[in-house]
Amino acid sequence: VSALAGAIRWAPDGHAAELLDQTLLPEAEVWLRIETADAMAEAIAALRVRGAPAIGIAAAMAVALAAKRHVAEPADRFRAGVEHAAQRLVGTRPTAVNLAWAVDRMLAAMRAAPATIEPAVLAARLHEEASAILEEDRLMCRRIGEHGVTLFPAEPVSVLTHCNAGALATGGIGTALAPIYIAHERGRRVRVFADETRPLLQGSRLTTWELQRAGVDVTVVPDSVAALLLRDARVHMVLVGADRIAANGDVANKVGTYGLAVLARHHGVPFYVAAPTSTIDVRSASGRDIAIEERDADEVRRGFGRLTAPPAASVYAPAFDVTPAELITAIVTDRGILHPPYGGSIRQSLSA
Amino acid sequence: VSALAGAIRWAPDGHAAELLDQTLLPEAEVWLRIETADAMAEAIAALRVRGAPAIGIAAAMAVALAAKRHVAEPADRFRAGVEHAAQRLVGTRPTAVNLAWAVDRMLAAMRAAPATIEPAVLAARLHEEASAILEEDRLMCRRIGEHGVTLFPAEPVSVLTHCNAGALATGGIGTALAPIYIAHERGRRVRVFADETRPLLQGSRLTTWELQRAGVDVTVVPDSVAALLLRDARVHMVLVGADRIAANGDVANKVGTYGLAVLARHHGVPFYVAAPTSTIDVRSASGRDIAIEERDADEVRRGFGRLTAPPAASVYAPAFDVTPAELITAIVTDRGILHPPYGGSIRQSLSA
Repeated sequence: VSALAGAIRWAPDGHAAELLDQTLLPEAEVWLRIETADAMAEAIAALRVRGAPAIGIAAAMAVALAAKRHVAEPADRFRAGVEHAAQRLVGTRPTAVNLAWAVDRMLAAMRAAPATIEPAVLAARLHEEASAILEEDRLMCRRIGEHGVTLFPAEPVSVLTHCNAGALATGGIGTALAPIYIAHERGRRVRVFADETRPLLQGSRLTTWELQRAGVDVTVVPDSVAALLLRDARVHMVLVGADRIAANGDVANKVGTYGLAVLARHHGVPFYVAAPTSTIDVRSASGRDIAIEERDADEVRRGFGRLTAPPAASVYAPAFDVTPAELITAIVTDRGILHPPYGGSIRQSLSA
Repeated sequence: VSALAGAIRWAPDGHAAELLDQTLLPEAEVWLRIETADAMAEAIAALRVRGAPAIGIAAAMAVALAAKRHVAEPADRFRAGVEHAAQRLVGTRPTAVNLAWAVDRMLAAMRAAPATIEPAVLAARLHEEASAILEEDRLMCRRIGEHGVTLFPAEPVSVLTHCNAGALATGGIGTALAPIYIAHERGRRVRVFADETRPLLQGSRLTTWELQRAGVDVTVVPDSVAALLLRDARVHMVLVGADRIAANGDVANKVGTYGLAVLARHHGVPFYVAAPTSTIDVRSASGRDIAIEERDADEVRRGFGRLTAPPAASVYAPAFDVTPAELITAIVTDRGILHPPYGGSIRQSLSA
């Protein structure tokens, strides 16, 4: 039994991407064969692939697939076809920073190539660029894991996590889950409590699924049970991912993260965030600069095919919340562990 | 539009009880006509009626229904029939304190009657006793509401609540929701945020339904959003019910209550508990003496008819948690508002 190595990969024949359809988990493990950029755009929009790093990889592979598709055309039509596919991909989830970043990187690789280059050669180069993005992500996950595992106290280590910042969200072994996988690989005893994470249940549906599959001891808890775990000293630390980190160390992540940070502080339990350096957004001076998107009310009112609230009930369901830097014990990145005050440690890390 | 006056009542003809089937809410509002003690035992076991006060009333009415059923029999067979029904009722939910209390009170009324009394007269007396229990509960709710509303600051008042401690849980306008209904009756503007309350969603399914029906402004939030509401100063207070209150003021209530109390303290927001004096259990010196029951794992793994976690996932799902007295700003009872230190105020209230 070993960790899932990401939820997205090239098909063995190299003509398609394969992705694990996360909307079907944990009821069914279905790998989709994605042969076109359009099919990938649909998969991204329908959340079949999710998690910022995984979405970036998916988009990069989709650009490479568009290139393969137009490879028999004249160079100008080839390039126009790739640009068109790129545009469609960026529109699928307009707020996903990694998606735009990955597509831009693919287009930059194409634009940097001389005009005289053969479409077939350029298509191969784009395939390599997408593979590089995937491989860099895989390495980034392992580095986060190796840095993070140094924070684990004597065994058996017991960790509380929220949402899914695991293999399913990345091209590797995840961000917040990476130190757990590394510890498990090294034969250390690790126990994980996974918050269910309403409304979309990424904790119970995804984190529990991937940890159990890798042989890691995992227990699901309703979100409201976390306080009890902390009070009863059943966890040594809280370890979560991040959607965006401001220049001062404030962290935007799945809603519920902020409450966990307050509860961890109250109980004297360390609260760690694990994320790639690319999650740091220096244009956001603090959490106040991060806009919080609201979810659709029906995710709460009828998320499971049943009416779980009156059909016209008002719902307040922000997707994210912001945890202020002062509640965060340390931030684990692929470049090392950042300590407070984060304004300085983040600047130093980015310039290193 | 007015508040629901409890989820259980006599049918107009007096030959049956009527109860609102809570397992069907909010999808359908179905009042069941319950004509026998056996049918009521089934309804209690299947959670068609829930909430400690409502279950007590249901059991008392069921004893009265058993008496009606055996009224044509000789006195000894009449009494044996009633005792037998009482025994079956107590077994439906063995941990429900109010159920045993109500059944005992009904049996005491029967046993206190002279042996020569006609079954028809005794059956009428038992009907009266059940009606008294219902009426006392109705009044208890109003008294809690009248005391509690004095804690409401200037309008519009914004209250965060958890689970359902409303009309659906009592014979009247509820316990934690009673001050809200009283304020609404008096034309004051009240806004309620209702925690969804996983795993059984009593907040989104029941609290939201009954408040909306009464015209009270209510918004559902996933449990993990509460911290954000408190941080953004969108609520003036947290107000919850109680399943049991220890002699020192520690409160056992639906899981998630303790976390809310910690979050309220962190944000300087008052945290109030509303419950009838009968909820105080002087045999429990502190919360440490209250046993916490665990729920069935499948409430978390497949609570919505869909698999929401791997089928063999470990689950930790305690039904209740204990909030220590030091996090509770005040306890609202039918006899008045108790302030800390609760050891003294509780003793004084019980002896008054």
